Amino acid sequence: MTPLPEIILEPLVRAALLEDLGRMGDITSAAIVPEGLNATMAIVARQPGVVAGLDLAILAFRLVDPGISLRIMRPDGAAVAQGETIATAAGPALGLLAAERTALNFLCRLSGIASATASVVAAVRAYKAKIVCTRKTTPGLRAVEKYAVRAGGGSNHRFGLDDAVLIKDNHIAVAGGVRTAIERAKASVGHLVKIEVEVDTLAQLDQAMAVGVDAVLLDNMTPEELRQAVEMVDGRAITEASGRVTPATAPDVAASGVDLISIGWLTHSAPILDIGLDYRSTGETAA
Amino acid sequence: MTPLPEIILEPLVRAALLEDLGRMGDITSAAIVPEGLNATMAIVARQPGVVAGLDLAILAFRLVDPGISLRIMRPDGAAVAQGETIATAAGPALGLLAAERTALNFLCRLSGIASATASVVAAVRAYKAKIVCTRKTTPGLRAVEKYAVRAGGGSNHRFGLDDAVLIKDNHIAVAGGVRTAIERAKASVGHLVKIEVEVDTLAQLDQAMAVGVDAVLLDNMTPEELRQAVEMVDGRAITEASGRVTPATAPDVAASGVDLISIGWLTHSAPILDIGLDYRSTGETAA
Amino acid sequence: MTPLPEIILEPLVRAALLEDLGRMGDITSAAIVPEGLNATMAIVARQPGVVAGLDLAILAFRLVDPGISLRIMRPDGAAVAQGETIATAAGPALGLLAAERTALNFLCRLSGIASATASVVAAVRAYKAKIVCTRKTTPGLRAVEKYAVRAGGGSNHRFGLDDAVLIKDNHIAVAGGVRTAIERAKASVGHLVKIEVEVDTLAQLDQAMAVGVDAVLLDNMTPEELRQAVEMVDGRAITEASGRVTPATAPDVAASGVDLISIGWLTHSAPILDIGLDYRSTGETAA
Amino acid sequence: MTPLPEIILEPLVRAALLEDLGRMGDITSAAIVPEGLNATMAIVARQPGVVAGLDLAILAFRLVDPGISLRIMRPDGAAVAQGETIATAAGPALGLLAAERTALNFLCRLSGIASATASVVAAVRAYKAKIVCTRKTTPGLRAVEKYAVRAGGGSNHRFGLDDAVLIKDNHIAVAGGVRTAIERAKASVGHLVKIEVEVDTLAQLDQAMAVGVDAVLLDNMTPEELRQAVEMVDGRAITEASGRVTPATAPDVAASGVDLISIGWLTHSAPILDIGLDYRSTGETAA
Amino acid sequence: MTPLPEIILEPLVRAALLEDLGRMGDITSAAIVPEGLNATMAIVARQPGVVAGLDLAILAFRLVDPGISLRIMRPDGAAVAQGETIATAAGPALGLLAAERTALNFLCRLSGIASATASVVAAVRAYKAKIVCTRKTTPGLRAVEKYAVRAGGGSNHRFGLDDAVLIKDNHIAVAGGVRTAIERAKASVGHLVKIEVEVDTLAQLDQAMAVGVDAVLLDNMTPEELRQAVEMVDGRAITEASGRVTPATAPDVAASGVDLISIGWLTHSAPILDIGLDYRSTGETAA
Amino acid sequence: MTPLPEIILEPLVRAALLEDLGRMGDITSAAIVPEGLNATMAIVARQPGVVAGLDLAILAFRLVDPGISLRIMRPDGAAVAQGETIATAAGPALGLLAAERTALNFLCRLSGIASATASVVAAVRAYKAKIVCTRKTTPGLRAVEKYAVRAGGGSNHRFGLDDAVLIKDNHIAVAGGVRTAIERAKASVGHLVKIEVEVDTLAQLDQAMAVGVDAVLLDNMTPEELRQAVEMVDGRAITEASGRVTPATAPDVAASGVDLISIGWLTHSAPILDIGLDYRSTGETAA
Repeated sequence: MTPLPEIILEPLVRAALLEDLGRMGDITSAAIVPEGLNATMAIVARQPGVVAGLDLAILAFRLVDPGISLRIMRPDGAAVAQGETIATAAGPALGLLAAERTALNFLCRLSGIASATASVVAAVRAYKAKIVCTRKTTPGLRAVEKYAVRAGGGSNHRFGLDDAVLIKDNHIAVAGGVRTAIERAKASVGHLVKIEVEVDTLAQLDQAMAVGVDAVLLDNMTPEELRQAVEMVDGRAITEASGRVTPATAPDVAASGVDLISIGWLTHSAPILDIGLDYRSTGETAA
Repeated sequence: MTPLPEIILEPLVRAALLEDLGRMGDITSAAIVPEGLNATMAIVARQPGVVAGLDLAILAFRLVDPGISLRIMRPDGAAVAQGETIATAAGPALGLLAAERTALNFLCRLSGIASATASVVAAVRAYKAKIVCTRKTTPGLRAVEKYAVRAGGGSNHRFGLDDAVLIKDNHIAVAGGVRTAIERAKASVGHLVKIEVEVDTLAQLDQAMAVGVDAVLLDNMTPEELRQAVEMVDGRAITEASGRVTPATAPDVAASGVDLISIGWLTHSAPILDIGLDYRSTGETAA
Repeated sequence: MTPLPEIILEPLVRAALLEDLGRMGDITSAAIVPEGLNATMAIVARQPGVVAGLDLAILAFRLVDPGISLRIMRPDGAAVAQGETIATAAGPALGLLAAERTALNFLCRLSGIASATASVVAAVRAYKAKIVCTRKTTPGLRAVEKYAVRAGGGSNHRFGLDDAVLIKDNHIAVAGGVRTAIERAKASVGHLVKIEVEVDTLAQLDQAMAVGVDAVLLDNMTPEELRQAVEMVDGRAITEASGRVTPATAPDVAASGVDLISIGWLTHSAPILDIGLDYRSTGETAA
Repeated sequence: MTPLPEIILEPLVRAALLEDLGRMGDITSAAIVPEGLNATMAIVARQPGVVAGLDLAILAFRLVDPGISLRIMRPDGAAVAQGETIATAAGPALGLLAAERTALNFLCRLSGIASATASVVAAVRAYKAKIVCTRKTTPGLRAVEKYAVRAGGGSNHRFGLDDAVLIKDNHIAVAGGVRTAIERAKASVGHLVKIEVEVDTLAQLDQAMAVGVDAVLLDNMTPEELRQAVEMVDGRAITEASGRVTPATAPDVAASGVDLISIGWLTHSAPILDIGLDYRSTGETAA
Repeated sequence: MTPLPEIILEPLVRAALLEDLGRMGDITSAAIVPEGLNATMAIVARQPGVVAGLDLAILAFRLVDPGISLRIMRPDGAAVAQGETIATAAGPALGLLAAERTALNFLCRLSGIASATASVVAAVRAYKAKIVCTRKTTPGLRAVEKYAVRAGGGSNHRFGLDDAVLIKDNHIAVAGGVRTAIERAKASVGHLVKIEVEVDTLAQLDQAMAVGVDAVLLDNMTPEELRQAVEMVDGRAITEASGRVTPATAPDVAASGVDLISIGWLTHSAPILDIGLDYRSTGETAA
Repeated sequence: MTPLPEIILEPLVRAALLEDLGRMGDITSAAIVPEGLNATMAIVARQPGVVAGLDLAILAFRLVDPGISLRIMRPDGAAVAQGETIATAAGPALGLLAAERTALNFLCRLSGIASATASVVAAVRAYKAKIVCTRKTTPGLRAVEKYAVRAGGGSNHRFGLDDAVLIKDNHIAVAGGVRTAIERAKASVGHLVKIEVEVDTLAQLDQAMAVGVDAVLLDNMTPEELRQAVEMVDGRAITEASGRVTPATAPDVAASGVDLISIGWLTHSAPILDIGLDYRSTGETAA
């Protein structure tokens, strides 16, 4: 897993910490835990899955107390068994307690996305189809959620409205046809921008291929329609299937020969991976 | 539903829009849609649920184009049937298209939380127990996710580490006992801060009630243990049950007589409510 | 003194430094002081008082030059005599001079608040009453000013409009009575939020106690009225006296038996504690 | 009074509002006050003084609810009598209540500075001396506090370390003498930057005048020393007296003939001007 | 010209205004110009060129005073003659004067880039080659500088390190060859990301075409080498020439048949287009 | 060269890096370059000039990877020959590649300004005239561009609208004459603010000198007019010539005896200094 630059992650972690620390910080621990106390805790998977988000967790601890260090056993992208220790964190107990929830909130959510992705990736292992995510991400967290999809073995669709053209039904309606829509896009964008068009029917696909595009999004087609579409395209464009694909239906979709299957729920509805903290040793007070 | 102050919402929407607009904005629509074109679209529920997040959606459209206005049919907190129109948005088509995904990302996620909350609230309607959320929220979105829980009929636990004391097992371990932990907290915090202690056993509960606290979190207890705990507390503290409660198990938990049931998955794992945009009329070009 | 998390303090110090450094930094020192020169300076109390704000001063120096280190003799919360050295700072002279005013502006103001608080706390030492501050704080500095009150031995009232309910005369007027106002609040807020009501008369107090609240704010009552109020409440709620209490009048107020005395001028009108910098040794040039 | 550009004021007001509104806004009013209720309130001086900060108050109300409008009776810089109405604010009651404390916190503090300044300005009315403030301002609020000094009839010293040279004792010590320090400054700074030197003795003043400077800061001199200093300077530089000047001692200082008297406590220790809000009419509910 | 979303432009203009207004705003005009005075001014081209940046200029005026309105005669992308009026601005004189320099700084710089681009575009009009810019932009202004290139008739290369793959000599060296480098890129990136490789020789080009890429950057080749390269590629990839191309040498380069010519100096060294403000009518004071 | 405080530079570099790294960072290098690989690269001048901006380049590398260190051979303000190495950077190859363009964009632009300044400074070496820049700077980069002018041997004019008075033709027109304009300014500004007036004719200059100002801006005068102006002023004010001065015309202007020559194109139109990165040794993989 190529990590995201820390300069991108830090503002997210900083905002999350401030949201939790509020105006006084952790008043419970401040009242109860002695200032010099050190502790070690284990970050443990409570269910099997795939890890993602450790860099955010590391930052959460470090931004609260630079004296906390983590040892990683299972890095981002690795599968973990139930009960397996992902990492240990050691340092001042007050810092560990103050950063705990923020670190876990990132780690559980991103590991949830990675695990969901991995399960679909596994389901289509026999086929060439890649699993890709959409722009249906949590507001503010798109960069890290797209990263989590990669950690789960998936691939990324465009990142925003500006880095690729995706022509949808409304664009086609306004333009008055698939052909005109594609031609306007081709005339407008830079040479490093790809153009994809969403089609609902094989007739539309035929029009799109006549003009030529980089990719076609085959929306809500049956496996049989998809198979015909792949045949029609015949390698002249990337083929992407979309429309409420689940791990159960994914193999049938993949068997059609499409290059990609895009799935919105990977980022908008995947449950978290349950990860908790176990305090291993609390007790030594720093000099 | 008392709305959140717009001054709190605006930075979230602004960040989400910039994340999607990137460095050039919506290049697909810019290439295809004429600048003066107006459109009307309907925000439609694709499945039944409870609405939350309309103020964020309104802001998303307005920040992209102040010429877009929304008419709300089903406000935050209202139940919607499948296919029901929640609101209509009218204005420049380019702005509608550019803000669409950001508006929906907020609306679907928060309505998902509201709907999940409402389903558990309905399940325990026969009892006095309130449903509350936890600090297991999406980093950066806690204020609006807690708001969505209220929209679904739930209530809120503390907002962060600083606005209430919640003594957990690690605090008790460090303090050397429930009694000492509570006493340290009482000696430390302000007069408007409540103190809650998490107990795993009735023995711990007994110790807590001996010193006195505002609330007790009864963690992972069976309905029968909960019933005994409520009896022991006898109105001297707020009683809260916690531990993987689902809509199915909630009635049994509520029947124990607890005041509150806290559920993490309302905010960390609720799937989105599927809400889409239907373009109703596109075609009139502004003078 | 439990310190505030540095992540909360840093943006305040950064903004203050940029305000003073402007577009070019310290042009006087840049013109006159050689770049390699090191110096040591003493942070000295010019009048007796209580220290608060050292973490902000430390940050001011460190953000300008990480090569500056401080040695603390009298930490936050400690009393200092006139002429006593609070801390020494050593490092590059250019950095010391550039950060000096910002460090002192924080330290003098917060120590002023701590000292004012300590003087009232001392005046009521014979009684159980705690001294608390209000929301009449300097815009932008509430978290650190509330901290300074704690450093002076005081306690904190609510931090903002959202972490506790405080029902005032206008709310009562709108609701049509004390009882209705309290009932509406109880029906609305979460279980960890306390409710306090401000009453001007014993008759209002009677109504409040009939419904039940967590705390009562007895506004502008005479010591005798306060005594009666405390008797009426009889331990069923926290009692708080308010209304232009000074160190001189505080003992009489405290003698009434109230739990708390809230004083706005601690944060809005306390004069600074005069603290200055004495350059102890300037002259060695770093290699 | 030339107003400060709103673009400078807005971030200050926004931060102050967010500090007070926290994560949920005004939960008390939300529970009790009906959403459609309108109100009018009067901003009233509880003691005589000089007004400053109305633009910040206006912004506080407008940022919370654009439907609130203010009518100004006594603008910034105007004297107010005890009980006099400074302005009225009308609009949604929920917005008025949510912004009230933030608006007053700005208004009371800045009016306090303006009033303190005005009292010293009045004390030296018979002389040519202007009253100026220092860099001993509240971190983050320097621009508005310097504005408040102008509102009180005072004038401003430099704004930061970068817009004028002020050579102090440490600079002189490092340079090895007044002359060298001034010469280094002259060789270094731009043609629109003025140079002032702080002198403690007439001997130092003599050295400074030999090289030539724009202004001299006569620190902690007696009125008689000041008189001699003014005579020595003889119009060749601006003369500024400094050192714990109070309204009582200001006339003697001014009588020496100095051009300026700088006073730190105007900004660091002036008590607030007590200004309150009186709700005039509450009751009409908007359609 | 499709405008950039205002939400992208506003932070740039706000920062530029604050940089110029400093801590007090326009002290010269505040001292001399009466507050109620209105004025009209013309934004006039002092030399011929192509306009870009009007939205930024509009924002500069509006953010300083919403009462200022602009009338556009020559929109972004339009050619202007020397002395031609681009737009007029009318409103409060104090606001016009305060925003003038910021508005012009944006307008002159972006129009300079547009004009430089237009001159090269004109030089290659006879050929199919498009003119594109690079990532050699002014730090912080890339989005608007790339927009200015489009206003001048040019097209954009990738926007950053993340929206397209560009394999350069160092990547090839590290990978051990063109082929391996391309293969690694293909295996790694998403389906909507294009891959371009920079080649210095026809031999390298041959290797690149063997694996297949979306575009080839032909660096520092002679027109004859370019011609051969285009022939070798034979439409299987986009061909881009680069290497200090000027308006004088551009036609020879374009004649080789390349699809694109990329030119760094469009954004890093184009001189501004000289645009000034002429005050047309100053004198009417608002009631 | 006195460096600018890092706290001023860091936000600029952070913004520039984020602009280039986008949502995923350097995807090309991530695909091709192994994570543990270290490299050394030389920052080399491709043409002769004067260096400025190294602190920004250092920050660019350090913010991407703290493991990168620079060794400086030619510091800011130093002249470099074509082909000369300015600095070397060593550390992780992925960080070097990711920060390369941002570091160079700052360095090339600021060195371009320094070099342009140095060439004019050299042209007037025989005269006393200093070369100064204007407010015609790149939006957002004024502090560093003014620094680059100092690195080239120039001096700075005012930094913004607030740190000095500059009375221009529009101010004079509004005031009804030079005399009134200057008198209003004198009555309004603080004692450390200098006043300069722009005059177009010797008659205007005569009026200005009659009232007295700190500096006069002699706009668009011939060398002969300038000579007469200097004679008229006779040392009573600083004299500044302005109006499209080039290295070629500068000596004639300087020969008039003016104190300053201000030149806008130093910051608005100077071409960059061409500086590139040569990878010296790539290959060792960190353990």
